[in-house]
Amino acid sequence: MSILRRDPTSYGWTIYPEEDFQPPLSPCVDQPENPPETCPFCAGHEDQTPPEIMAVRPPGSDPNTPGWRVRTIPDRNAVLRIEGQVGRRGEGLYDMMNGIGAHEIVVETPDHHGLFSDFDEALLSDIVWMYRERMRDLVKDPRFRYIQVCRNYGVRAGARLSHPHSLVFALPVIPRAVREEISRAAEYWQMKERCVFCDIVNQEQTDKGRVVFQNSDFIVLEPFAARTPFETWILPLEHESRFLDLADEKIVTLARAVRLATRALASELGNPPYNLILHTSPIRVEKQFDMQHMPLAEYYHWHIEIIPRLRELNGFEYGTGIYVNPLLPEKAAARLRGVIDQNHAG
Amino acid sequence: MSILRRDPTSYGWTIYPEEDFQPPLSPCVDQPENPPETCPFCAGHEDQTPPEIMAVRPPGSDPNTPGWRVRTIPDRNAVLRIEGQVGRRGEGLYDMMNGIGAHEIVVETPDHHGLFSDFDEALLSDIVWMYRERMRDLVKDPRFRYIQVCRNYGVRAGARLSHPHSLVFALPVIPRAVREEISRAAEYWQMKERCVFCDIVNQEQTDKGRVVFQNSDFIVLEPFAARTPFETWILPLEHESRFLDLADEKIVTLARAVRLATRALASELGNPPYNLILHTSPIRVEKQFDMQHMPLAEYYHWHIEIIPRLRELNGFEYGTGIYVNPLLPEKAAARLRGVIDQNHAG
Repeated sequence: MSILRRDPTSYGWTIYPEEDFQPPLSPCVDQPENPPETCPFCAGHEDQTPPEIMAVRPPGSDPNTPGWRVRTIPDRNAVLRIEGQVGRRGEGLYDMMNGIGAHEIVVETPDHHGLFSDFDEALLSDIVWMYRERMRDLVKDPRFRYIQVCRNYGVRAGARLSHPHSLVFALPVIPRAVREEISRAAEYWQMKERCVFCDIVNQEQTDKGRVVFQNSDFIVLEPFAARTPFETWILPLEHESRFLDLADEKIVTLARAVRLATRALASELGNPPYNLILHTSPIRVEKQFDMQHMPLAEYYHWHIEIIPRLRELNGFEYGTGIYVNPLLPEKAAARLRGVIDQNHAG
Repeated sequence: MSILRRDPTSYGWTIYPEEDFQPPLSPCVDQPENPPETCPFCAGHEDQTPPEIMAVRPPGSDPNTPGWRVRTIPDRNAVLRIEGQVGRRGEGLYDMMNGIGAHEIVVETPDHHGLFSDFDEALLSDIVWMYRERMRDLVKDPRFRYIQVCRNYGVRAGARLSHPHSLVFALPVIPRAVREEISRAAEYWQMKERCVFCDIVNQEQTDKGRVVFQNSDFIVLEPFAARTPFETWILPLEHESRFLDLADEKIVTLARAVRLATRALASELGNPPYNLILHTSPIRVEKQFDMQHMPLAEYYHWHIEIIPRLRELNGFEYGTGIYVNPLLPEKAAARLRGVIDQNHAG
């Protein structure tokens, strides 16, 4: 069983997997290289993965057989596992617990060489639907406090397998970064009695310079203090705190916004490495974050952040949390709008 | 003039340098490659840098001439500059200010091909002395709130020039990461009326398993929840909150601890890329952090963190702030102790 340990000076958790290994310097390549012949995610290789948890597949077809469009499986080398007790305990001044949780892989297509930014609207809708369904399923486990959905593209963004996939984690703790974002949103509400994300959407719609695209339900924009060139956010226009409440009719409009954003980035930057990170409300902790007249559902607003990984963080950025970004988000937005207009995408 | 912008959802600042440029994907190499012939940091090239701020050089020798051992200059492409007004202002819900501060380079040796981990005790003492003196000088400017000293080694740690150097930044804000660390230390003090770092030193001295080395003034250890394999901390044994108060007689013992830690990491991991980051108390904000019976100087404890950069952060780590580390710090410490014993270093 893996172990989680908490640093008493930052409250940051670190997960130590069960089997440790000599850490190699990750190779200097753009994409991980594992051939389709030995790829466990390819169609026809369903028996090389743990049994599937959920799949988008033709009605009546058997689990763990070909024919699926999107398939979710547990990670074989999961750093968090469903089985066991959380076992919260101390060791002197330190805190630790067992690596209880979920660590799932959403295989996004049977096509080993598929490119997320080239996926069509129907496939992206299936993937968005899968994110929502996995979240709806995992929140039922009373031990979990947060579900993290993310996507790593390219070795520099931490990807280890070339077959297109996303990751879904369920955690027995509220991650530090999530807790901080919620605290900031709560402070904003205390001051203004408004959601900070709703205010961002409103101001960006007025300013226009950082907006890349907008459809009936979602806005794609470069945030005012973008940490890295072409950092891109996707926000629901209407206030919504939990991604798992996403309405059926918004699945396709979100798929369109994700498609447009990733296509524009791929086109403008030549398939850069990136992380796509879903930020949503934690679960089963509403009471903890509900202050007087201030329910979590009213002040927190789910959204997606896409972070291109164009260069390494340096010690100044690591140590301070202050980033140096050589490109103003207004200029990045103008370039992405230019690509979208040219391609008649969206 | 560069601009600082603050993200309203995280309170994180981003610095936008004056001239923006098309962001390149940083090259896939271990070390930056700039030849000594055109290196502005090499002896004899003093006229290719802005005038020196401070140097360790023979008594009576002229500034900006060869003969120096350690030399501090302003960065020619500084992202923060001394001249001008801070100009704090808003833009709707957003906050921004001018890029006022300092951005200095400590050239650590005239030798272009020198290796920090091979520096002798005398040179490392000069470098430690320089860090302290730059900090003592920069705190005089009433606009500054934090001085960040750091060192980037290798392209993957954000280094851009091969000549050995460290960086000193002065900031008109308290960085988010520093503010959080101080808040955690304050919470610990409220609970225990003890410094969390002093308690860490005591527990590690008792447990022994994570200690790499100790001398009369400093302890080198692998922290309990190390975020990355071989993350290494150096802490003063006696409680001290501000690095700039470092006593003269501790310069050489700190130099020995830094030498030993970086030599052991270089030996065990083959000169890995790393960041060395000094964490110290912010300045001119004691009132802000002093709570009743709880002065900042009593609960915060300066220290150095060395973070080897062996692999890329993935989306899960970026999004949650929870790290996955495949090597327990006890095992890393044992390996580093083994290297030290073999080499009879320290």
